[in-house]
Amino acid sequence: MCEFDYQLNLIPLTRQELLSTVCEKVSKKRFKHILGVEQAAIELAKRYEVSIEKASIAALLHDYCKELSDEQFRQAIVDYRLDSELLDWNNNIWHGMVGRFIIEDVLDIHDVEILHAIEIHTTGSNQMNLLDKVLYVADYIEAGRSFPAVEAARLIAASNLDAAVAYETSQTLLHLIRQNVPIHPLTLQTYNHFCANMLV
Amino acid sequence: MCEFDYQLNLIPLTRQELLSTVCEKVSKKRFKHILGVEQAAIELAKRYEVSIEKASIAALLHDYCKELSDEQFRQAIVDYRLDSELLDWNNNIWHGMVGRFIIEDVLDIHDVEILHAIEIHTTGSNQMNLLDKVLYVADYIEAGRSFPAVEAARLIAASNLDAAVAYETSQTLLHLIRQNVPIHPLTLQTYNHFCANMLV
Repeated sequence: MCEFDYQLNLIPLTRQELLSTVCEKVSKKRFKHILGVEQAAIELAKRYEVSIEKASIAALLHDYCKELSDEQFRQAIVDYRLDSELLDWNNNIWHGMVGRFIIEDVLDIHDVEILHAIEIHTTGSNQMNLLDKVLYVADYIEAGRSFPAVEAARLIAASNLDAAVAYETSQTLLHLIRQNVPIHPLTLQTYNHFCANMLV
Repeated sequence: MCEFDYQLNLIPLTRQELLSTVCEKVSKKRFKHILGVEQAAIELAKRYEVSIEKASIAALLHDYCKELSDEQFRQAIVDYRLDSELLDWNNNIWHGMVGRFIIEDVLDIHDVEILHAIEIHTTGSNQMNLLDKVLYVADYIEAGRSFPAVEAARLIAASNLDAAVAYETSQTLLHLIRQNVPIHPLTLQTYNHFCANMLV
């Protein structure tokens, strides 16, 4: 686990306060995953010259809303007047796309880069900045992950961030299709942009 | 090869004239595929109580524009004032989505069901009628096809048309992703509707 303090006043919490806030909100297993994502995100941030502090905060908050109930997400979609098409989706999509608004509101966090990285950490998009890519990839390769493709993903991530986004997206799509799981249009957009070299 | 005449005056051509028109427009190999699709479409039409005549016409015309040049498609997108986003795609998408307008214009064919089946025969959609499904599946299972999944697809098509659409869509997506080929949003829509049971 990393030990350092935030210096940039990006959020109204110290790193220790943020850790405590997140720890109270999720299961022990998920908190361990979140710490793994933070570690991976910091390593990627150093490698690709992204703000380490933003990478840490985005990573620590990316699953902050993962354990909310479907009913809480549906209510949030109404309360925050979000696109009603979001109601057709599920926790996989909501904890990022709706979670981003809950985090902004409840934790008083307004850094748009951090919020955007959290918003699209599950789907990606065709417009990802370095912080978006760092969180997207870190969530896939953190040390606690053990699925077959993860070793290749780690190797690719160490040398080429866009290639890591592409590999993760292809592997994720193949997994979702084999499981007959719904796929969000943004995931397809990420695939077409990063894997199929289409600028759509 | 089937031998029968059209009775319903759906198009301003006899079946023999339509065969000649198509034969002149495509390679011998593609014409053989087209005749295979017609045969498969007629069998599915009988099984699922769809107009045999519409199934025959849609099948004979589904690849009518397949051998046009990219330049011809780009010009058609401009001439017919179609959505400029179509310009981002390729022959795989154009021969159905743009071809439908060329067929309507050049061959004086205006049956909306036939034209719609041709339009979406590559992608499917979340709103497919029986004729759409018959052509979509026939194109995948016709006797000339020999890829690994085709035998399973034929067995499924013989008993459940929606399941055949779902199987074909999943298999097609897996194939496209493994090849890093761009995927049209309508293909994802078809997947989410038929495979993932999402009404999007």
